[in-house]
Amino acid sequence: MSDDEGKGESPETPSLEERTRKAGRLPGDRYVRIHQSSDFRRRGDRYVIGEDALRPEGPVGRAYEAVRRFLFGPRLSMEAEESERLGVFTGLAILGSDNISSSAYATEEAMRVLALAGIGAFVFLTPIAIAIVGVLAIVVLSQSQVIQAYPNGGGSYVVASDNLGVLPGLVAAAALLIDYVLTVAVSTAAGVQAVTSFVPNLHPYSVEVGLVFIAILMIGNLRGVREAGVMFAGPTYVYIAAVGLLILYGIFRVLTGDVPPAAVPPDPFGPEGEVPLVGLTGVLLILRAFASGSVGLTGSEAIANGVPSMQKDERRNATVTLVVMGVTFSTIFLGLTFLAQAIGTIPDRSETETLNSLLTRSLVGYTPLYYVVQGSTALLLALAANTGFTGFPRLASVLANDRFMPRQFAYRGERLAFSFGIVALAVVSAAVLVWREGSVTELIPFYTIGVFLAFTLSQTGLVRRWRRLRSPGWQWRAGLNLLGALVTGLVLVIVLVAKAGEGAWLVVLVIPVIVSLLLAIHRHYMQMQDALVIERLDEEVPAVRPPVVIIPVGRLDRATARAIGFARSISPAVKAVHVATSEESAREFRTRWDHWAGKVPLDLIESPYRSLVPPLLRYIDALQEKDPERPITVVLASFVPHSWWEWLLHSQTALRLKASLLFRPNTIVVDVPYHYDDSHDHQGKRH
Amino acid sequence: MSDDEGKGESPETPSLEERTRKAGRLPGDRYVRIHQSSDFRRRGDRYVIGEDALRPEGPVGRAYEAVRRFLFGPRLSMEAEESERLGVFTGLAILGSDNISSSAYATEEAMRVLALAGIGAFVFLTPIAIAIVGVLAIVVLSQSQVIQAYPNGGGSYVVASDNLGVLPGLVAAAALLIDYVLTVAVSTAAGVQAVTSFVPNLHPYSVEVGLVFIAILMIGNLRGVREAGVMFAGPTYVYIAAVGLLILYGIFRVLTGDVPPAAVPPDPFGPEGEVPLVGLTGVLLILRAFASGSVGLTGSEAIANGVPSMQKDERRNATVTLVVMGVTFSTIFLGLTFLAQAIGTIPDRSETETLNSLLTRSLVGYTPLYYVVQGSTALLLALAANTGFTGFPRLASVLANDRFMPRQFAYRGERLAFSFGIVALAVVSAAVLVWREGSVTELIPFYTIGVFLAFTLSQTGLVRRWRRLRSPGWQWRAGLNLLGALVTGLVLVIVLVAKAGEGAWLVVLVIPVIVSLLLAIHRHYMQMQDALVIERLDEEVPAVRPPVVIIPVGRLDRATARAIGFARSISPAVKAVHVATSEESAREFRTRWDHWAGKVPLDLIESPYRSLVPPLLRYIDALQEKDPERPITVVLASFVPHSWWEWLLHSQTALRLKASLLFRPNTIVVDVPYHYDDSHDHQGKRH
Repeated sequence: MSDDEGKGESPETPSLEERTRKAGRLPGDRYVRIHQSSDFRRRGDRYVIGEDALRPEGPVGRAYEAVRRFLFGPRLSMEAEESERLGVFTGLAILGSDNISSSAYATEEAMRVLALAGIGAFVFLTPIAIAIVGVLAIVVLSQSQVIQAYPNGGGSYVVASDNLGVLPGLVAAAALLIDYVLTVAVSTAAGVQAVTSFVPNLHPYSVEVGLVFIAILMIGNLRGVREAGVMFAGPTYVYIAAVGLLILYGIFRVLTGDVPPAAVPPDPFGPEGEVPLVGLTGVLLILRAFASGSVGLTGSEAIANGVPSMQKDERRNATVTLVVMGVTFSTIFLGLTFLAQAIGTIPDRSETETLNSLLTRSLVGYTPLYYVVQGSTALLLALAANTGFTGFPRLASVLANDRFMPRQFAYRGERLAFSFGIVALAVVSAAVLVWREGSVTELIPFYTIGVFLAFTLSQTGLVRRWRRLRSPGWQWRAGLNLLGALVTGLVLVIVLVAKAGEGAWLVVLVIPVIVSLLLAIHRHYMQMQDALVIERLDEEVPAVRPPVVIIPVGRLDRATARAIGFARSISPAVKAVHVATSEESAREFRTRWDHWAGKVPLDLIESPYRSLVPPLLRYIDALQEKDPERPITVVLASFVPHSWWEWLLHSQTALRLKASLLFRPNTIVVDVPYHYDDSHDHQGKRH
Repeated sequence: MSDDEGKGESPETPSLEERTRKAGRLPGDRYVRIHQSSDFRRRGDRYVIGEDALRPEGPVGRAYEAVRRFLFGPRLSMEAEESERLGVFTGLAILGSDNISSSAYATEEAMRVLALAGIGAFVFLTPIAIAIVGVLAIVVLSQSQVIQAYPNGGGSYVVASDNLGVLPGLVAAAALLIDYVLTVAVSTAAGVQAVTSFVPNLHPYSVEVGLVFIAILMIGNLRGVREAGVMFAGPTYVYIAAVGLLILYGIFRVLTGDVPPAAVPPDPFGPEGEVPLVGLTGVLLILRAFASGSVGLTGSEAIANGVPSMQKDERRNATVTLVVMGVTFSTIFLGLTFLAQAIGTIPDRSETETLNSLLTRSLVGYTPLYYVVQGSTALLLALAANTGFTGFPRLASVLANDRFMPRQFAYRGERLAFSFGIVALAVVSAAVLVWREGSVTELIPFYTIGVFLAFTLSQTGLVRRWRRLRSPGWQWRAGLNLLGALVTGLVLVIVLVAKAGEGAWLVVLVIPVIVSLLLAIHRHYMQMQDALVIERLDEEVPAVRPPVVIIPVGRLDRATARAIGFARSISPAVKAVHVATSEESAREFRTRWDHWAGKVPLDLIESPYRSLVPPLLRYIDALQEKDPERPITVVLASFVPHSWWEWLLHSQTALRLKASLLFRPNTIVVDVPYHYDDSHDHQGKRH
């Protein structure tokens, strides 16, 4: 063996190759192979884990698993992803319900503004409604182009960042993120209002009821997009059927000349208004009415954002759903507007009764149909909160993939849902609800602004896209989107000006804050990538010299013995170090050490000030000064007690040492745990 | 080299000896030696760390150090311990102040009980006072024997557990621990009362003032016992001097026949009492008066508990201090009692004015001496809280050394104080103060019970001791202590019966709870010792086979490369494992891996349910099933970002994996950190 000496470049640090060559074989599969158990199936060059192996053991684990299954259902494998997707029928219910539900109040919103100039101004209602449907048509057309161009979802954010640049994209993203949070908060509040008007005793618990509602939505969405669909299909289609029936019946009566008398609200608007309908003031009022009615356009972006959750062919299905949604909304909206005009229904100034209710009451009185219409409307408005739960996690996952949000948002949970985003949305919107103590109506303008900001950016982005691509027919596409951008931009400006006093100014504060947060996150990930990325894959994994191993030793016991054993097994250069507070104790320790573990060299440090961690840190410093390149590994013996409270009985010196070493370069800390049970094994073997 | 093959008993696991023999040398000091820096001095076979090396670096660390120095003073080395000790002068102030301060109210306490039988019953005052002084004499004598027999402190706990058994010892300890907490709470409340009667505006902030007071006491004590002495010597000696002067002046006037008229309190007791002073009732009343006056005996255990903090010769100094304390208390107590009798002072039924104040007022009126007496009394009563701060940490350290309390209580801080006990006492007594909202008078009986329980147990213990040792004169010693045990036991029973309704029953609940807590802690430490202790020191440190090293790999980057490098440096048996969620990603990873780190074998796990941690755990299970004895080391690559919030941007998979592996036997987890700055070093080297 002596002819080995001095051959290697550093004799005390034989390389891996050297060591394994000596052992006569290459390291690898041959001698470290897993036991083929029922947990794994071998498939080609890999192991596939079965669902059984994921089930926790022990009573607590099993109870947790049972609760998890009850709440969220069984785990879904990656292969189940296809079957989890939405068809047109469920897609309309899940992604279209927000927009369709707007038809219940869009007419009234426009009329309330016109009524400021007296009920005579209602002659402008039909033109405004037609204009809104026109804008919706433009939006639907442009969204269908978004679906074709960007089938991976992300909607306005993707369109804007792809065509206008990162910053406009992030502004659109921030606006939409805020929107989704507000959709949940506002719709939940609406749902709670509906519940508490049925059960007045619950009124003092409005916030709590809202939190329960959000929790139910969260669990429904964590169960996966399809199961959430089942929750929504009912109310959506009942609403469409009942309101459709009502409109058909109404039109039949109007056409047959059997127009019923208009039901009178508790506090109708008068014939004279406060604002004269002349000159610029008049034009502005009509524009404001248009802007208010445009609330009916909100929610129409959900389908373009959610294309990847549609069944194949995703683009076709999404487009069909989008068109069906647009037609459904327009039909109901125009139908209700026509009937309101024909019957001469005047909205209630005090907002006690909705226009919808007045209209239904005029036509059918307090019949079962009235209750079906009202009930399904209330339910649908509340469930519009779900749009937030489909939109937010998906947009967040797109942002996370682009490294603008934490990576956790891009992971799919056990039910294939973006669990992290769902939970985050529930938490944030619950916080908004608690913060506003359940009264969120003032947040609505904020929300409209977000929607139209995103629309404007996305339409502008599409204009740029057509001009760049110059594909056949790009002129009319660009023209259409330009018109769309102008119209939605105009609505945005009108809402901003009209609602400036009502909190819309918050947008100016919150959107920049969110955008800079997204940018900060991005900067971090990019820095990390710069730091970690390996430019060339054929750069070899660096060979590291065996580390110098230091074992801080407090006393001589089994835990220390195990730590020393481990240290000796990983490196030939092992040193123990003991901190003593007095000369006598240092001397005594040396004697016992030499007797017990004399093979391992021991350094003694006398610390007359009784501190433990700083002397060890200085010791490591001093060791490293000698050979700064060589890695240092600190091996700590730690006793793992039975239960958490027993931790408190041990001084946390090891913990403090670890914390101090965490940020130290070229230093690795290894905890060698000694379990209480180990000693039994040990003793079992000895006796 | 080929002749090496197959020689070792397990060729892939060369032992330390083998490896170092190959390297031609023994492991040890020779090639791993610390850089002799200014931080360490070499002294014999050890390094001594200087105080400079303990100073933190960086602006935050230096600011912290400056604040620490300002609050607690410079670190004290072990050698300074001697100079930190107390002489008789400071010892009396620190350890005797609680007892001496009792002389301010003991007379009044006894008189208030007697007054229930009318002021005629005051004739029994002098015999009762003499009896109390007699009991004190017995207590002082027995304490002086405790000092001789148990010079390491611990007082009643040590005496009782040494002579009566563990359980009586722990009962005494629990009683004393409670007492110390209550001493702090009660005295603080008294101090706050004194402050707020001067500054009534502070009254609504009583609790806050109390917390500030406790914080000051805590800091004073953390500065060390000597510096705390400086705080206390003033008030104690001013009180002794002023009250002594008053008594001398009073006696002079009584002897010269110039007896002043007694000052009349706002609400004096009348000549007729509610309780007739006849038969058993009368005897009981006198006994109760005696019990109430015995409050003057509280605090007398402090010196015997604190012997180790006295200067050498500790026993002599402690005994002298004890005797001086007894004489001082008795003189003042008897003097005040005599004057109260001679002048005919009647205590105030409404407790608005103290007897002490009435007496001083009768003799000297509202002169400066009056204010000095009153002021120093108030200050001394408040500072009696400090007895808790000297007693509790010391008793806790004795209990910790006996493994009945967490080991942290036995450590001495940088100023040689038992920092942990001081902080714990401050926290608990502050909690009591907050819980009682600053009104703690109802806790006083509880407190007296604790003191007399400890006294009784300790005196009984001494009786057993003398009977066992039978040293010369044991009969009279045993007789004396038997008398002491009977008297203190009687007082205990009287207080228990008399105060049962006032919360004394709590003792019955709290003491057993504390005792069982102490026993549980002891059980844990004993189990741990059983588990860890090495029976024979010549049992060799076990040689451990090189571990199987597993590296869970998420992606190929510098952090992973470093982890692989480390793993290869510590063992020839390294395996990487990657969890993929789909077949394609698994295949892609395999291709890149083979290209990049093909030397290290890779196992692929396909996890169609997207979970990461459970498949890794099952994988480790399966590996271990193959070779259950072989240790497994899991090496994790972790990126250490700049700031804490950046942590949130990384999924905590590694953390969850570590938590799951913590309680797994035969498994060691190593975190290989990759620091943001490392990449700069790296890039710096490359370019």
